[in-house]
Amino acid sequence: MEIKSGDFVFLLSSDNKTFLIRAKEDKIFGTHLGNINLKDAIGKQYGEVIYSQLGKPFIILEPTLEDMMMKVRRLTQIIYPKDASLILLKTGISSGMRVIECGSGSGALTIALANAVAPNGKVYAYDRRGDFLENAKRNVKETGFSDYVEFKFREVEEGFDEEEVDIVVLDLPSPWEGVPYAAKSIRGGGRIASLSPTYNQVEKTAESLSKYGFVYIETIEVLVRKILVRTGKTRPAERMVSHTGYLTFGRKAHGLMNQYDDVIETKLQLLDTNEQG
Amino acid sequence: MEIKSGDFVFLLSSDNKTFLIRAKEDKIFGTHLGNINLKDAIGKQYGEVIYSQLGKPFIILEPTLEDMMMKVRRLTQIIYPKDASLILLKTGISSGMRVIECGSGSGALTIALANAVAPNGKVYAYDRRGDFLENAKRNVKETGFSDYVEFKFREVEEGFDEEEVDIVVLDLPSPWEGVPYAAKSIRGGGRIASLSPTYNQVEKTAESLSKYGFVYIETIEVLVRKILVRTGKTRPAERMVSHTGYLTFGRKAHGLMNQYDDVIETKLQLLDTNEQG
Amino acid sequence: MEIKSGDFVFLLSSDNKTFLIRAKEDKIFGTHLGNINLKDAIGKQYGEVIYSQLGKPFIILEPTLEDMMMKVRRLTQIIYPKDASLILLKTGISSGMRVIECGSGSGALTIALANAVAPNGKVYAYDRRGDFLENAKRNVKETGFSDYVEFKFREVEEGFDEEEVDIVVLDLPSPWEGVPYAAKSIRGGGRIASLSPTYNQVEKTAESLSKYGFVYIETIEVLVRKILVRTGKTRPAERMVSHTGYLTFGRKAHGLMNQYDDVIETKLQLLDTNEQG
Amino acid sequence: MEIKSGDFVFLLSSDNKTFLIRAKEDKIFGTHLGNINLKDAIGKQYGEVIYSQLGKPFIILEPTLEDMMMKVRRLTQIIYPKDASLILLKTGISSGMRVIECGSGSGALTIALANAVAPNGKVYAYDRRGDFLENAKRNVKETGFSDYVEFKFREVEEGFDEEEVDIVVLDLPSPWEGVPYAAKSIRGGGRIASLSPTYNQVEKTAESLSKYGFVYIETIEVLVRKILVRTGKTRPAERMVSHTGYLTFGRKAHGLMNQYDDVIETKLQLLDTNEQG
Repeated sequence: MEIKSGDFVFLLSSDNKTFLIRAKEDKIFGTHLGNINLKDAIGKQYGEVIYSQLGKPFIILEPTLEDMMMKVRRLTQIIYPKDASLILLKTGISSGMRVIECGSGSGALTIALANAVAPNGKVYAYDRRGDFLENAKRNVKETGFSDYVEFKFREVEEGFDEEEVDIVVLDLPSPWEGVPYAAKSIRGGGRIASLSPTYNQVEKTAESLSKYGFVYIETIEVLVRKILVRTGKTRPAERMVSHTGYLTFGRKAHGLMNQYDDVIETKLQLLDTNEQG
Repeated sequence: MEIKSGDFVFLLSSDNKTFLIRAKEDKIFGTHLGNINLKDAIGKQYGEVIYSQLGKPFIILEPTLEDMMMKVRRLTQIIYPKDASLILLKTGISSGMRVIECGSGSGALTIALANAVAPNGKVYAYDRRGDFLENAKRNVKETGFSDYVEFKFREVEEGFDEEEVDIVVLDLPSPWEGVPYAAKSIRGGGRIASLSPTYNQVEKTAESLSKYGFVYIETIEVLVRKILVRTGKTRPAERMVSHTGYLTFGRKAHGLMNQYDDVIETKLQLLDTNEQG
Repeated sequence: MEIKSGDFVFLLSSDNKTFLIRAKEDKIFGTHLGNINLKDAIGKQYGEVIYSQLGKPFIILEPTLEDMMMKVRRLTQIIYPKDASLILLKTGISSGMRVIECGSGSGALTIALANAVAPNGKVYAYDRRGDFLENAKRNVKETGFSDYVEFKFREVEEGFDEEEVDIVVLDLPSPWEGVPYAAKSIRGGGRIASLSPTYNQVEKTAESLSKYGFVYIETIEVLVRKILVRTGKTRPAERMVSHTGYLTFGRKAHGLMNQYDDVIETKLQLLDTNEQG
Repeated sequence: MEIKSGDFVFLLSSDNKTFLIRAKEDKIFGTHLGNINLKDAIGKQYGEVIYSQLGKPFIILEPTLEDMMMKVRRLTQIIYPKDASLILLKTGISSGMRVIECGSGSGALTIALANAVAPNGKVYAYDRRGDFLENAKRNVKETGFSDYVEFKFREVEEGFDEEEVDIVVLDLPSPWEGVPYAAKSIRGGGRIASLSPTYNQVEKTAESLSKYGFVYIETIEVLVRKILVRTGKTRPAERMVSHTGYLTFGRKAHGLMNQYDDVIETKLQLLDTNEQG
């Protein structure tokens, strides 16, 4: 794994700061511990050390998906890895799938979705804000995932172009406005995920999902707590992020509700949360 | 997405019970709401409904990775989706990678790892218990991931056969015993993840990781809380799983510690938990 | 502290079961580890051991307020110690105060309130259900707090008899219906506390509190997690109660809102949550 | 409840800042919203409004126990209300009791203990640091609880003077060093509480409690999460205090362990955590 010009490096300083940047022959990168000549990284292996001009060591790590998500240029609140990872697992997203993301924001989740559908799948990333879309596009390009993402500048009320997609992810202030369009674009058995900070949004979203033929609906919140591990004095960190948003998931029953009058009652009953931990 | 004989179906009953089974022409499947003739599912689309002999509806859903993990035959405690999903994201596992899993247990995480490395990568799944290994092998085979997993019946003290792997996952009672072997088998910049229920295990594991040249070590716990969403009466569920285990992550600095005396001090300082949420 | 006939004993068995009962000369008490002759406890000190007729030891502990709350006969969900203790502290209830409790349920919180106001204060315990009230009365009597509690069989819509009380505690399905009456009965600077399981109730309650002249309104939830401490294998318990209810607190600004038009805007701004942990 | 000179007032500004101070004829108090002439508060009722010289309104609230604890002058980390309130309830502290507090720090918990034992009980507050003790003494005096507290400047290794106390509270870096002395000073059936930030401290403390004849030992942690209640957009606060310390409780079995050889085994079995939520 010899590092070549243009490869990403994730530099770790002795005071545990990290920097995500591409190795380039002619690039000097300034840090609080002195300038780093990125040419020094080229030809090295990941895990080796380079030094700043002040002689401070930096370990060259290989960026993970999480690193790339956390280091995007942010114009919006991003979807955190703790939430993104459960969206990926619970929607069952995998290579080759076609995914609509509505409300791509700064593109952090877009990158994670693109990584999951590559190399044959596609993410259709919609946003109503041109400036957000341009920024997300840039973030996706810089992390090397442009081939798997198609950006669309669009209001949610104009609907989605795609049909029979496998998964829809909604990150909207009013997710329930996107649900009817999601229901049209998603194939039977496909999954939907929605992220919202308030319980009021969650209530309306769950109602709408039920109305538009989604079943097996569940809402969760994910809390991640850091543990400070020191031999003989280990304890949880004193502060934590206690809320980002609630995640709501559902799965598409085939066709529109009115074609299935006989099972409407069933489906409404199914608007329940299953028990597994 | 017409369902064919041999395809998995994930049946959802009106009382929110789920069943994972393969559709087969000649298979009758008994449920608490009557027998289901699985022939009925063949030729249907995911999202459609079939009925038991008692006339009870079951929606045919498509199983996700989570569904398959939760439905494996269990001889051991499995790694829950909430933990597995962060292991996947934080190790940056992706298609084509080579991964050692030591302590494959019932194979739930093995399935998730295999899904992530497919189609060109490989999971080397070690376990010291023959009965566990046979069960995991069966679970992996039944879910269709056998091509991406190589099982090995082995005590951790005998080490791993592979070199320069991208990722090692330890699910052992004494993870620190696996760390020296992991350090030998993992490439520079590669990631390690370990899951342990007690604080004491975490302390010893973090010490060992630091000693054997891992950096950027962090320990977290993940809590998932269900929200019962009902219009006008939404609240968290009354009970939850409050603990499965702590997740500890690290990344391999190149070479063994004693070849890098000048950076040992640096690395020890790096045994710190970073701040991102 | 010699135990006399009629004193409470809190018996602890070797398998960590507990029993709250009064010592009596002629009482035989059946347990899963054999019958206990309660005469044996008389004349002993708290902390000593008595034996069942099967020779099994029971340590005689002195019941705490928590023990008495948890052992009341329950016809309703009780208010848990984790919530009751913060209600006590945050309302600043203390000896001599006059307190209205509306929705006394099984009387667990009534006991805690009575203990706090004794010996010169009084708890006015309202409930609309006669059967609940009788049960609460019995529980309060059995734990010896009858002198400090006056029970009232009443619908909330009929209001409260008391004026200028120090504290009002609402445990109602529709707390907002009790708020206007609480506002009339509470003195300036007095505190109100309300417990509700759903977010929707909390929203309406906070709105109502603000409308009726309460300020410094805050809503919290309390989570208590058990740690299983074993040398060398310490970890959190695997399951926990993740939700009982949200606690909402407020303080009465003097007079009714319409007498203070000039400060209405101020008070509305004060409907904010303070920052202390 | 007319406010007199010398009474505490808890002033609430329109931007939700709070100030704890005594009303005095000749005192001017500076705030970010202008100076307040505290003479204005005298003769008012709690709940009324006074104005700064800039015309900004401040509601005069009555300080609760929590307010006084949070506003002490801090030389140390204080025990938070969430923890203090459960210490009060679970130890069953009440009027007339005698309590040892070892490690009185800034005196926040001392105030809460004093409030609970008044008017006939006593808190014996030990600390090894003279500067801490002087500060705690000042805080206790200013909040009016001096009559119920006796301060002692002492190393824990010198033991406690009191015998047959009802409750001991340990807030020490090495609580297990205080346990043997606590065991000597506490009466049979009396309760002990210990607060420690690390799990390592908790393990040693629980071992020591068991060794010195305490039973019904349990360790918990308390998490308080703020909910931001706004009609139509209610959600948990984004950040929270995720750790202050673990609380460990126990109860004294009568006499020293070696006098009870026949029940030692029983007691060791009792070192278990009970199940109630």
